[in-house]
Amino acid sequence: MESSFYLKNSAVLQDGAFVPADLAVEDGKITAITQGHYNEKGLPELDGTGLRAVPGFLDVHTHGAAGVDVNAADAEGLRTIGRFFASQGVTGWLCSILTDTVEQTLWCLEQARQVIEGGPYDGATLLGVHLEGPCLSTEYKGAMPEYLLMHTADPDLFARYQKASGGHIRYVTLSPEIPGVAEMIPRLTAMGIVCAMGHSGAGYDQAMACVKAGVRSCTHLGNAMRLFHQHNPAIFGVALESDVYVEAICDGRHLHPGTVRLYLKAKGYDRVLAITDSIMAAGLPDGNYKLGVNDVIVEDGDAKLPNGVRAGSTLTLAQALRNLMKFTGQNTETVVPLMTANPARLMGWTGKGEIALGKDADLALLDQDAQVVRTIVGGRTVYTRA
Amino acid sequence: MESSFYLKNSAVLQDGAFVPADLAVEDGKITAITQGHYNEKGLPELDGTGLRAVPGFLDVHTHGAAGVDVNAADAEGLRTIGRFFASQGVTGWLCSILTDTVEQTLWCLEQARQVIEGGPYDGATLLGVHLEGPCLSTEYKGAMPEYLLMHTADPDLFARYQKASGGHIRYVTLSPEIPGVAEMIPRLTAMGIVCAMGHSGAGYDQAMACVKAGVRSCTHLGNAMRLFHQHNPAIFGVALESDVYVEAICDGRHLHPGTVRLYLKAKGYDRVLAITDSIMAAGLPDGNYKLGVNDVIVEDGDAKLPNGVRAGSTLTLAQALRNLMKFTGQNTETVVPLMTANPARLMGWTGKGEIALGKDADLALLDQDAQVVRTIVGGRTVYTRA
Repeated sequence: MESSFYLKNSAVLQDGAFVPADLAVEDGKITAITQGHYNEKGLPELDGTGLRAVPGFLDVHTHGAAGVDVNAADAEGLRTIGRFFASQGVTGWLCSILTDTVEQTLWCLEQARQVIEGGPYDGATLLGVHLEGPCLSTEYKGAMPEYLLMHTADPDLFARYQKASGGHIRYVTLSPEIPGVAEMIPRLTAMGIVCAMGHSGAGYDQAMACVKAGVRSCTHLGNAMRLFHQHNPAIFGVALESDVYVEAICDGRHLHPGTVRLYLKAKGYDRVLAITDSIMAAGLPDGNYKLGVNDVIVEDGDAKLPNGVRAGSTLTLAQALRNLMKFTGQNTETVVPLMTANPARLMGWTGKGEIALGKDADLALLDQDAQVVRTIVGGRTVYTRA
Repeated sequence: MESSFYLKNSAVLQDGAFVPADLAVEDGKITAITQGHYNEKGLPELDGTGLRAVPGFLDVHTHGAAGVDVNAADAEGLRTIGRFFASQGVTGWLCSILTDTVEQTLWCLEQARQVIEGGPYDGATLLGVHLEGPCLSTEYKGAMPEYLLMHTADPDLFARYQKASGGHIRYVTLSPEIPGVAEMIPRLTAMGIVCAMGHSGAGYDQAMACVKAGVRSCTHLGNAMRLFHQHNPAIFGVALESDVYVEAICDGRHLHPGTVRLYLKAKGYDRVLAITDSIMAAGLPDGNYKLGVNDVIVEDGDAKLPNGVRAGSTLTLAQALRNLMKFTGQNTETVVPLMTANPARLMGWTGKGEIALGKDADLALLDQDAQVVRTIVGGRTVYTRA
């Protein structure tokens, strides 16, 4: 299928509701949304009877899938992840590089640059890089290798990374309590990087200072961070109280369903991002895997380091959508912004995250059980359910 | 001043905004609210120029003030508390009986009954009794005497108490994890009692079970309770996630200002109650006091047991109003429902909590600094600033 087509008879998510509509797509963009059939240009037709068209999902935090670990992935490995993601309704993603050596990080950035600048392929578009580290707290390191963490902010290193990546670093996770981090945030922001806070034991004042300095997101809220206390709400309280976006790993393991409901009540459905934080084991059976330099054991789909610390997930965004519907009792249209409009708004991807005239034709077609039937990236079908 | 008068030239809080209006009060009820002067019945006039009329404050959780401890107060002692409260803009209150012996509790209930049934006096109306205990967690007992806590629910004891009080117990604090509590909640509700959860280490499921059984409030949220964890949001998470009302002690000591902002963000300005949880030291200088059977030391206004555990407050609702304005940056009209409309709605006091036709003429007149200038209960002035 080429990047122009005419989708008829589906229900299209528009302004928060599914409406019966036809979509015309030309050269990868949405050029018409009509009630009734108006395929005036005779575009190739796709029958969406019984299907629901939603914006393609966007995952801003993932370390791998389908047997490929981002920190070890060459360009083709990254495309392998993107192909698997497409099967889960994902049309765009950031690859999350776990804290690693400078040399390995530079190599990873080069692989990502090749994929990003290499243009369309048969998977979800790699939209940039997320650096998870290296300025992260030792106490809340999670799966970060402790000996590679940096204990003072080094804006020159980030500038070097950004240059090496071709300007494709879009997202960085920082611990507010690392000396120099608050001061570095405006500089990273000026490089076009969205700053997130996380992996952190920051107190209220430290975290709020970083929000005032420009932090706009919180990395996997509730995981690998100091939690709330009534006398010091800490980074957790700041994330809930302030207007930053918050990532949530909705696999039912990282966060209790009530925790997810609490986030949505406090933040609203427009400020929570569903992410996977997935590792190479996503889409594969239980077994032994790697996450960066770490060994990871997956049992019953649960990924942990040998010391028992949870290390990423095997979640997919398609499953996160269904989990969120179950956790909240809400319908697809209420929940789907967590993986579409919200990440697009946070990252400034103005062409993505909603179905509207002139937007990229990045679409997921779902059946009535919110299972992915077809995924379309830039107007081209990259996944069709067997 | 009798219980009929005409208040002219003040700004009256109406539907969330201060509007220039005159109020006619006859026989203790508001009978007219007019733009312009229409004192057609020639009622005694009161000039409110420069003042703001708000509903009188309602405190549903206090253990004393002005040198009187509720657990040791005879009827005249309770009136002494009520007179002090009137000086702080309070027009109605519940006396909170700390967990005590059955005999002492029965004596306290009798004193409260006498005051409630004794009718108007020159102080804030005692509207009922709050029992804080005895079915409370040992681990989160706060200032509760451990040897008096009950480890299984005893609905017959509550029935006995309610009968002894003349039906004036309106509010009870329970720990969800005490065996039998969840089952007892419908029975207490049928007795006309609003059930609150608190002083508790309850997990998520225990606390949610009690909310489903009829708990409608949470006692001093964040104090003397198990806090949030991402895998078990516990009673704290249930209080935020669910629709229950939550009490907040806004003295800047029990809760960080950011904690109060978080509560307001998650719950909304219509679900948070400002309470004092004050002890006999409220309104008095630092020194040695009692709270039930406990010794309490007040230093710099901060009340603590000899072991350092915080034991109530020296807060007043007038100060809480000003603190809330400072913590939130919001104006008086936005914050005042926390101590007026919200407690009235929770407790079912349909005649109180707002200024409207037919409502009780329970009013606080504030100056431009939110200081109390005059307090009116049932149309009668019970406090005038010197």
